[in-house]
Parts: sequence; C-alpha cells; structure tokens
Amino acid sequence: MTSRWDSSDICNIFKTIDELNKDWGLNYWGQQLNDWTEVPPREGVLNPGWKLEWERYSQWITTDFLAWQAAIVNQYKRPDQFVTHDLAGPPRPEINERNLSKTLDIVAVNPYHGTQERFDGIGSSLPGDYTRSLKQTNYLVTETNAQTTGWDSSQQFPPYDGQLRLDVYTHLSSGANMVEYWHWHSIHYGQETYWKGVLSHDLEPGRAYAEVSRTAHELQRVGPHIVDFKPNNKVAILYSNDSRHGLEYMKFSNTVDYGWIMHQMYSTLYHENIGVDFVFPESADFAKYKVIVVPPLYVASDDVLNQLVEYARGGGNLVMSFKSGFTNEFDTVRWSMAPGPLRQAAGFHYQEFSNLHGPLALKDDPYKVGDENKVSEWAEMLVLENAQALAYYDHPFFGKYPAITRNKFGSGTLTYEGTVLSDKLQDNVLLDVLQIAGLTGPDQKLPSAVHVKHGTNRSNHALHYYFNYSSDPQTFKYSYGAGEDLLGQTAIAASQTLTLKPWDVAIVEEK
Amino acid sequence: MTSRWDSSDICNIFKTIDELNKDWGLNYWGQQLNDWTEVPPREGVLNPGWKLEWERYSQWITTDFLAWQAAIVNQYKRPDQFVTHDLAGPPRPEINERNLSKTLDIVAVNPYHGTQERFDGIGSSLPGDYTRSLKQTNYLVTETNAQTTGWDSSQQFPPYDGQLRLDVYTHLSSGANMVEYWHWHSIHYGQETYWKGVLSHDLEPGRAYAEVSRTAHELQRVGPHIVDFKPNNKVAILYSNDSRHGLEYMKFSNTVDYGWIMHQMYSTLYHENIGVDFVFPESADFAKYKVIVVPPLYVASDDVLNQLVEYARGGGNLVMSFKSGFTNEFDTVRWSMAPGPLRQAAGFHYQEFSNLHGPLALKDDPYKVGDENKVSEWAEMLVLENAQALAYYDHPFFGKYPAITRNKFGSGTLTYEGTVLSDKLQDNVLLDVLQIAGLTGPDQKLPSAVHVKHGTNRSNHALHYYFNYSSDPQTFKYSYGAGEDLLGQTAIAASQTLTLKPWDVAIVEEK
Amino acid sequence: MTSRWDSSDICNIFKTIDELNKDWGLNYWGQQLNDWTEVPPREGVLNPGWKLEWERYSQWITTDFLAWQAAIVNQYKRPDQFVTHDLAGPPRPEINERNLSKTLDIVAVNPYHGTQERFDGIGSSLPGDYTRSLKQTNYLVTETNAQTTGWDSSQQFPPYDGQLRLDVYTHLSSGANMVEYWHWHSIHYGQETYWKGVLSHDLEPGRAYAEVSRTAHELQRVGPHIVDFKPNNKVAILYSNDSRHGLEYMKFSNTVDYGWIMHQMYSTLYHENIGVDFVFPESADFAKYKVIVVPPLYVASDDVLNQLVEYARGGGNLVMSFKSGFTNEFDTVRWSMAPGPLRQAAGFHYQEFSNLHGPLALKDDPYKVGDENKVSEWAEMLVLENAQALAYYDHPFFGKYPAITRNKFGSGTLTYEGTVLSDKLQDNVLLDVLQIAGLTGPDQKLPSAVHVKHGTNRSNHALHYYFNYSSDPQTFKYSYGAGEDLLGQTAIAASQTLTLKPWDVAIVEEK
Repeated sequence: MTSRWDSSDICNIFKTIDELNKDWGLNYWGQQLNDWTEVPPREGVLNPGWKLEWERYSQWITTDFLAWQAAIVNQYKRPDQFVTHDLAGPPRPEINERNLSKTLDIVAVNPYHGTQERFDGIGSSLPGDYTRSLKQTNYLVTETNAQTTGWDSSQQFPPYDGQLRLDVYTHLSSGANMVEYWHWHSIHYGQETYWKGVLSHDLEPGRAYAEVSRTAHELQRVGPHIVDFKPNNKVAILYSNDSRHGLEYMKFSNTVDYGWIMHQMYSTLYHENIGVDFVFPESADFAKYKVIVVPPLYVASDDVLNQLVEYARGGGNLVMSFKSGFTNEFDTVRWSMAPGPLRQAAGFHYQEFSNLHGPLALKDDPYKVGDENKVSEWAEMLVLENAQALAYYDHPFFGKYPAITRNKFGSGTLTYEGTVLSDKLQDNVLLDVLQIAGLTGPDQKLPSAVHVKHGTNRSNHALHYYFNYSSDPQTFKYSYGAGEDLLGQTAIAASQTLTLKPWDVAIVEEK
Repeated sequence: MTSRWDSSDICNIFKTIDELNKDWGLNYWGQQLNDWTEVPPREGVLNPGWKLEWERYSQWITTDFLAWQAAIVNQYKRPDQFVTHDLAGPPRPEINERNLSKTLDIVAVNPYHGTQERFDGIGSSLPGDYTRSLKQTNYLVTETNAQTTGWDSSQQFPPYDGQLRLDVYTHLSSGANMVEYWHWHSIHYGQETYWKGVLSHDLEPGRAYAEVSRTAHELQRVGPHIVDFKPNNKVAILYSNDSRHGLEYMKFSNTVDYGWIMHQMYSTLYHENIGVDFVFPESADFAKYKVIVVPPLYVASDDVLNQLVEYARGGGNLVMSFKSGFTNEFDTVRWSMAPGPLRQAAGFHYQEFSNLHGPLALKDDPYKVGDENKVSEWAEMLVLENAQALAYYDHPFFGKYPAITRNKFGSGTLTYEGTVLSDKLQDNVLLDVLQIAGLTGPDQKLPSAVHVKHGTNRSNHALHYYFNYSSDPQTFKYSYGAGEDLLGQTAIAASQTLTLKPWDVAIVEEK
Repeated sequence: MTSRWDSSDICNIFKTIDELNKDWGLNYWGQQLNDWTEVPPREGVLNPGWKLEWERYSQWITTDFLAWQAAIVNQYKRPDQFVTHDLAGPPRPEINERNLSKTLDIVAVNPYHGTQERFDGIGSSLPGDYTRSLKQTNYLVTETNAQTTGWDSSQQFPPYDGQLRLDVYTHLSSGANMVEYWHWHSIHYGQETYWKGVLSHDLEPGRAYAEVSRTAHELQRVGPHIVDFKPNNKVAILYSNDSRHGLEYMKFSNTVDYGWIMHQMYSTLYHENIGVDFVFPESADFAKYKVIVVPPLYVASDDVLNQLVEYARGGGNLVMSFKSGFTNEFDTVRWSMAPGPLRQAAGFHYQEFSNLHGPLALKDDPYKVGDENKVSEWAEMLVLENAQALAYYDHPFFGKYPAITRNKFGSGTLTYEGTVLSDKLQDNVLLDVLQIAGLTGPDQKLPSAVHVKHGTNRSNHALHYYFNYSSDPQTFKYSYGAGEDLLGQTAIAASQTLTLKPWDVAIVEEK
C-alpha cells in the first residue's frame, strides 16, 4: 500500500494524536495545538446529523492513521512478528474499534477494573468479550491491574490475596492468549507514580510479586490446555456506536445513557452465566445466535432494521430497547410512524413519548420483584397492533400504554422495552426470553458469587472455568462431563460437588 | 425617524444580536465574535455601580436596535399591519422590556411552562400579567407549549388530556388576544427536533392535534365574547430590574434572590386568587391600587422612594421587603441611617443586619403556621420608632429585633419584612394586608386546585374564568351574578354550585 | 544593598503582583496579563517534582520582590520606623512566609475568622501562633473582623455582644502587640461595601463602636502589663509547605489533605489547652520541645528526616502521620523500603498501602470512643519490626496490619498514625503522648467552652488568659499562683474559683 500521507501531513498526524489523547485529559503537544487544529465549534452546532458526520470523520482519521502506521511496519516485519495495538477500555465511543481492528494482525486490550470488594470479573470480561468479537478470535491483554492504579494516590486499591491470580484466569476465560502488566516496578516520579507495577518502589519482591510468580508457574504447566480458548455463545449484544453518539446529542436522561443500558444488559447476562458475543450493525452473522439483545438502536438505516426484522422472521429472538429505529443513518428522525421499519415486527406504533419525573411501578407487579418493580426516565406511549402487552404502567395517564411488549413474528419473537427497567426487571425480561430460546439450565442455579464460562481448547476438549469472586468459600454442583481440574490436578466426576476457596478458580477439562 | 445607524454599524448589529442571544447559550456567529466585541471584563470589575451602568447600557443597545428595526418597518407597513416582538420568558433581567415595548404596536410573549403534574397556570399567568402591564393592554402569545419542549429528549412532558385546551384559556384570562404555537409539525433534524409541534414527526393527526382542533372550533364560536378581556386589579407588584441586578452583584444568599422573592409574592397572590398588575419605579399610577407589594427595592432614587411614601400617606398599603432603600439609583449605599427616605414611613431604623446560618422560628408562632413558622437567610436588626412589631425572632441574640413590622402612616400602612419568610408566613402576611385593604372574599375559599380570574369583555360584561388545575373533578360555589357558561352553553345562576371536570374550565359571562 | 532589579524588570514586577493576587481571584492589570506572563501550563505537566520546583520558584519571586521593596524603604526610613507586611491568612501554600519574614522588621497578620456561634478563638490563635513562630517573637494584627466581612452580602455575621472585645484579647494572648481593623467606617460602593468597618454606612456610632471604644480604654490601662507576651510552649507542629504541595499533586483523598490533618492536630492541641509553636524543616531548635507533632511529611530530605530521628533518639516524642518520608526533597519516591530513613526510628516498614472505600473501626475500640472509633481514607500496610502496635484495623484483609504504632527509640518515642483518625481518636492519641511527655494537668479539666493560655509579660510575671467562648457563664478552678485579674481589678487567690460571663475574659497576672 502506498500511503497517501506525505511530510506535509504532519499537522494531521498531530491532530490525530490529539484525537487519540483527548479522552485521557492530556495533550502531549501543549496548548498551542488548539490554535491551529481545525476543531469545529461542536458546542455551537445545531444539527445532530452534522455532529454525527463529524464524529465519523474523526473516527476515520484514527483508523486511517493506524492503517498507515501498520502498512509501514508490515513492509519490514519478520514472518514471526505481528502488528497489534492496545485498545484502552473498549468500547470507546470516539474510536471505531471494529474498522481499526481490520488493520491489525491481532487485537490487544487494556482492561482496568475494580478490585477488593469491587472485583467480580465483569470489568475484565466485558472488554474481553468485546475485543474477542472484533475479529472473532483470541486476543491479547497488554495491560491490566497489577498492584494499584491512579494518577494520584486517592484510588489505591491493591488486590486482596488471590485476586491477581483470579484475574489472569478471568482474562483467559474470555479468550485472551496473554496477560501482561503495564510495568515491572513502580516508578519513582511522573504522573504514574501511583500506577504501581508488580514490584513496589522499593524494588524488592512483595505480596504481588509472589502471586504473579505463582500464577506464571501454573501457566507454564497448564498453558497448552487452555490457550486458544473458544467459547460458542448463543447470545449476542448488538453494539451501535452511532446510536451511542446520536443519543448523546439528544440525551433522554441525565443519569441513564446508551452505555448504561448496554452495561445493564451485559451485566444481567453475565450474572446469569450466559456467554455473550458482540455483534455490530454491519455484522452478517446474526443467524448463528438464538437471542440478540439490542440497546437503544437510535441511529440505523432501513437496511439494518430490515436485517433485524428478517432475523426475527427466521426464528431469532430479539430484545429491543426504546428509541430503536427512531432516526435513520443520518441521525434524522423518520417521517413514518415510529418505530419505522420495525413497526410490523414489533407489532405496535407510537406517536408520543414522555420523560418520567420519577419512577413508576408496573401495574400488579407482573414479575413479582417487589421494591424493584419500577421503571423510570422514559415512557413511549405504545399503541398495540399485533403485539401482546407484558406489562402496563401503574399511573392514571400512562396506564393506558404498555411498558413492555412481545410480538410473535414469523418463527421468532420481538420483545420490546419502552422504558428504562430496574436491574431486577431487566433480569426477569431477559431470563424469560432465554427460556423461550431454550438457553437456561444449571448455570443459572449457581451461588451468586460463582461465575462459570464454557468453551473448547485447541484439542477441541470442553473447558469449564468456575470462579469464586468472594471472600468466602463456595460449594456447588458441577453439571458437566467428567474431566480433570487442571489447576488442582484432580479428577472431576460428572455431577460431583465442587468447593472453591475465596478468590479461587477451577478449570475443568472434559475427557 | 431617521436612523442614526449606517452601514458601518454592522459590528454593532452583530454585537446586539450577541447580547440578545447570550442568554440562550448559543452564538450564531461563532467563537470569533468574542474577539472583536468589546465586552468589558465584568468579572474583574470591583464597583457594583459601574456594573449597573454597563448593564443599563447593554439594555439600551437592545432597545435602540429594536426601535431602529421597527422604524424601518413602519415606513413600509400597510395600515392593517402592525409591529410586534416576542418576549422570551419575561421578566428577563438583561432586557428593558418596558422601554422596548414602547417601540411596538402590540407586545407578544412566549410563555413556556410546566405540564403534567406541574401545570397550575402560574407559568402562563405571570408572564401574561407582566406582558399585559407593559403597555397596560392586551397582548399576543406567539409561542407556548404544544406537545413537548427541549433541546434534547430529557425534558419531554406532553400535556395530559385537557391541558392543551386549558392552557389556551389560561392565556386568554390574562389578557392574551391570540395563542400561537412555535410550529405545526415536529422537525426531523436540528437542535429543536424534540421541541415538538402540533403534529409529531409522522405528520399524521394525533392526540395533540385533536385537542388543538377542538379548542380552535370553540374559539371560533366564543371568541367575540372573550376577546379584549380587561381585568381591573387592585393589587400591584413593583418590579425593579435595577434592584434585581444590584442584589445579584452583592447577593445576600446562595439560594434566594430578587426573582425568588418576587415569585414568592406573585405566587402567594395567585394562589389566593388575587389578580395582579405589575408596576415599575417609573410608573405614575400607583394611586389606582389598594395594595402595592414590593420585592427588595435595593436600588432606588430618593424620588422613587418618596413616591412610595406619598402613596402610603395617601391611603395606600405597602408591603416592602428587606434591603429596600439601601442604595440609591447609582447602586451606592446611602450614608443616612437605613432605610433612608423610607425611615419615617417605615417607622424604624437599623444600623446592622446579619445572614442566618440556618432557619429561625418567629417567637410564639404568631401566625400559627406550625412547621412553616420559619424565616431564613437574612435578618435586619430593626430598631422601632413608630412602627409596631408584628413578629420577633426566637433567638437569644436576634430576639430583641422585630422580624416583621407595620407602621400606620398618613391614611395608609407600610408593612415591612426584615427577613425571608416561609411561603406560609408570606401568605399570612399578605392576606392580613389584603384584609386591611378590603380585598378578601369568596375567592379565597375556593378549593386549592381551582383558580378564578375576573374582568370585563368588549361589551363591558363581567367575565369570570374558573379553572380546574387537577386530575380530579372540583365542585365549588359560584359567587357572582347570573350569566351563561360560554363553553358549556348553559345558564348559570348567582350562588349556584359549579363542577369542573379534570383540567377543565368554565367562562361565565354575566348578563 | 544594591538591587539587582532595573527598569527592564517591570514585567517581572507585574508578574509578581499577579502571583500575589491570584489567590484573591482578581487581577488588577486585566486579562492581558495572562498573555505575556510566562506561566507554564502546569495542568499538563506530568512530573510532580517539576511542579514543586516551579512552585518554589514562584514563591521565591514573591520573597525576592518584597526583599527588594524593603531594601528601598530601609534606605529612607527613620530610626523609629519599621518595615512590616500583612500576611493574609497564613499559612498560605503559595507564599514562603518563613523566608519572606526575614525581610521584615516585624511580621503582621490579618486573621479573619468565624463569629457568632462559630467563634471559639481558634481562627485567631492558629494564624497568630504561626505568625509568632516565623520570627519567634511578637507580631501585629493589621486586620481582623470588625462588624462583618464578605465581597457580597451572603456572609454577614456581626459578632455577638462581647465577641469583638474577646477577640482582641485572643490575639494578644497569642503574642500580638497591636490589633487594628481594615477600616474605620463601612464604604458606600465597591467590592468591599459589605466588608464593614467599626462604623456602619450611616457614619454614626453603633454597637460595634461602643465595644471597640470600651476595649481601647481598657487597653490604655492594662497595656503595659500585657504587651510583649511570651508563651513558653513545649509542643510544636512541624509545618512543611513542600509536603502540602507534594500531596496536592498526588492527593490521597478528595476530602482530606495536608491542611486538614495539620488543622486537626492543631485543633486537638488547642482544645486541650496546650500552647503550640510551629517549627519548620529548616528549624534548628527541635530540642527545646518535648513533643513534635508532624502532619504528613511527604516531601523531606534525608537530612530533615535524620534530624527528626536524632530528636527522638535524644528523648523527644514524635507523633508522625502516614506518608511521612515517602518522597525525597525533589518529590521523588524513595527507592528504599518505606518509610526510608525513618524506618529504624519508626520500628516498621511497608511496601503497600490502600485507600479505604469507607470508614473502618479499630479492632476492640482500643481508645473507648464508641461511635468515633473510626479511621478512613488511607491505610498503610505496616509490617512491625521493633514498634508496638497501638491499634489494628477491624477488617478481614487489613486486620493483619497495625493502624497506629509506637516505637521506643533511644530516649524518646515515635508514635505513628498510618491512617486518618477521627477527631476523637486523634485527641486520645495526642493526649497519650502528652502524658508520656509529662505535659498534662489541670488545663485539660477545664469546661470545654473555656480556653486558657499561659506566658510571661515584660516584667517576667506569669500571665494566665482565661476565655469563655460561649453564650453561657462558665465557672472553674483557677490552678496557678495568686495574682490579680487585670481587667476586673480584683485579687485572685491560688486555687480559687473563677466565673466568666458569656464571651468574657480574665487575665491573671501572678505576683
């Protein structure tokens, strides 16, 4: 590839770096940068569609810059070398990670997450599942929590005993083929003084070093059994970065946004031990999933919506959030009756919607969740056509409109959430759909602190990771085929009882 | 009129537009504007008097610009045409609406207000009463809530059934001669995508359309009976924009300001069904009012204060807030004993004042308001001369100073509030003065959700508007002369019982 | 002295004035100043050590500028004249008050403080004790609260009866030789309209005038007995401005900082009626104190730390806060085991530390403080060598690490606080050390509203100031030698009972 860049493009390079850095709140090139880069005054721009085009252009610059860099390296690298790049906390709205990953031989990610009482594996698994989905294959972890993180000393939370090791296996169970730390020893000056490495500032072995060493020696032994781990997930989340931006320009709440809903949906599935892939509006493989969960798909072309409609018609189960289909691919509101091309598959239409001054209950607590029986922020005033109402608002005015609907369409279903659900309501709605799709079983009966992930290894043997994310021992029934606990080096019988120590893990390889 | 503007004044025009727009948080002309308009660094200015002069100059620029525009139009308009301008949310501190209105043939206003549970008519009536008072005649509503408003989708609150219609009559009962909406159908892109019109984005008739249509057909029929509605109010609020600014430069509280006190006073009178005009320091017709209510008149010339003194001496009843008379027309503190020229009429003096760390009770709960017996923020340490103390602070140190006083002066009274009153206390103090003035009667006994306004129509018949601002039906006694309910087209007897449906209205025209 | 400044240095002078003014939020020279002073973009700087050097340079500019001014004045002043400068609210982090004071003949200070219920003498005593410690001699009060203060009217709190007089004696009891007010009468315009003087805007005598006059006449009589008051304190607080900055660059909490800890330590000693001096890292006279209390000494050279170690070895009692010794004089983390050169004297080492998500209890409530048994924000994971643990965390993970330790070292002790203590815990820890040092007695048994300070006057007679900082009379036992109450002009017997009226003071001069 001949680059279209030449030396006069230096300004653009700097601008690109600025784009990359802006989210980190720093600017390596000083304040002058703002004077000669042509950042348009986005705050003053009145047209959401214009903003979205600008955003796409900004993302393209980054993608293009990395492609140019990769092309240079590709000219010189040896056959045993590869090009990677570390994504910082994906999905990030300002980067088109899917396009960018096409440039790379292998994608890498830096998942930083809560520790101590706030460590439950989700902060490693979500970016891991997302990164694996970009190229639908294994990935690398180039940075993750060693001792502590922070640009000052106000968020220093060294992991409890066992958490460093547990985190390594958490990454591997999402498909990581490597776990690396930002640095070996903590540095003595600079902004990252308190972003501590494996060693403290005293440069002597300590608690973290001992645990990293133990884990590394384990990996030396079990590595060949667990590398290239492949999950085979039947549920996907449709991630639309355009919708995330479109909703930000015209936000529907000061507390809930696209990312909040997406995280609630992922978190619900995670805690129910349902393995999840991410798909994208431009993905072509919806059909391999039994359930696709869709955070507010606010910005979408007719083609994308029609593809989802065909997915449902062909037997797929869609769970869609409010505002889906409201604008087209230019972030322009459709001038047909909402929800546009989804109307027939959804089985309703609406002309009106309202924010909610405070939470409302669903009438008669249909999911029996007691105090958690509440919805908030947004209520579409849905008028049923063929769909069935799963729940109504308990309110004199809004009571005539359903809050949650389901439509049988072709061989599939479309379940629609016209409002923001409490976590417990979201859990019930998703579990209900998972049952329809035949995806529930013993994994939903594990203790709440225990998490399981399934897949196969290089030898195509089934692997089952069981994690204990708590300070108490956990005992539960193992529900899969006989095999061996690779770490404990003990045989495991089908249906036997397993006990995990605090912050411990078992990896069972079936025979 | 020959304009003193020529083509070289283009910079000034732009600056003026900037002044007009600044309160809306946008700048149509981009960021460069800030570089060449000569906005002085107000933040760094140390003299409140200087700031006030600059503020007056800024206001004059807007007034002058509109006068110039009107003069051009006046050269070309037909005899059946008129010049108007829509005031956005008056009273606005950055505009001299009274001077500006002299330029116009008819004043227009855009009152946007709360809906759903937050619709009680006050958000339409306050700007309406104010706008009517500018030229002391009828006015136009050029914009008001249709379906929803907002520059994003976080404040979408479509009116409940009946509220759109009720709002139209609310405007007319303050003296509006027209009610218009911002747009016909909701727009599909741009900042005002969610500032919805009478139609939704689907361009098809809906709930709002049906209600607007019903109301329009009603108006076609009853219009001639209700147009040019004239109230005949006996109570006025004195609005001092200079005081509003002066107090902002030297604010006495982080939560209460001039606008807060003015709104509390208006709101109290509104909920007691007392019709209110606004008067201004330069008004010449104080004598037609039995009561004048004065929010903190912090900035005032000796002439203005003396005019108020003469009003009281001649039989008027003044209710004045703390800090009145403290500075002269240059926002300079008087060097005579406070409250300056008001001292004799007020019947006290003071040398000291204190903020209050927290609310204090009035000693012995003199107005019997229980939990609402509290004052806050500010306490003038009043020393009585001829005035009578109506209430004292319940406090070891402040207890020796009265909180509220009344002085009989000439044939009138001056009631003074030396502190910030709770709403319930303000209600009691104002009701007490209204009783002295002989202005109370059956209107103060209506259910709290029912509001009434009185006036006369073109044929000089008395009109009585009764509004139900609630989701429940309301029944009450009609206390005026026999007539006809124009909307219900039924005869109404004197003293009969009326029932209003939720969010409904009756307009009784006396025979 | 020949000044190294010449006329081309005008830019530097302006810059210096800017430095002096920046903390006041105003800029006398307008906005242009920012364009040509070379303030580097500190926000974007990544190296704390670099920031500290810049800070030291900024402080030097101010020191140097005042030295230059003083040198000019010194050429012309008469023998009976002197050079002073008023420090505004010391200790201020942006000024090196200790270096600056070397330039002056006598140091002056402007202590503004809480009044009404918030007046307890500490707001006058802390800056007073600090200012006295700069040149270790008496000082002047050039401004302090007269009627009210504030740049608007939201913080107007005129003193209760007696507080103005009580404040004068509070200043004198810290070693002030003069008490002056900002202005005589309140000004009628400008930013300080509400920074009221001895007279109100009416220019007539009032309540404040009467009390100032009474006090001035008293001083005329008792002045010779109380001027040049010398306390003889046995306890010092080590103030490290470098540490204050270093911790700010790498803050350990959003609510607690260096100043907070220092204030907690001072306040504890103040309320226990322990007279306090301030010492500095460069002080040479540690040995005269029995106890030195050390807020987090985050930035310190080996020399400074070794001097403290020697102080303890020689019999001194050190109380040190967490993070002491963590970085060297360049704000660079030490690469030896923490706490660096303090390790042997402290009797422990540590490799790790953690923030705390919420407060923790100390195991078994060792100080019997009930609800106040809590520590927060920060926990160093101390590993004992020779020290004794005084308290452990009550927590499954942190429970193995001591929270407070004491090490007997040489003839002295080093007590270490590895976490942020509640006020009540700090009180117990400090009292315990004061007892070891033999510094407790009857002063710790006075009523909580009564404060006492001791020292000697010009004639070397002992003086005992007893203050009543409350609205109630206070009765207590006088525990020192027989003498005279200078203000009441009555004889005082040893061990007699004294009663003070609200907000009153007694000054007993021993025979």
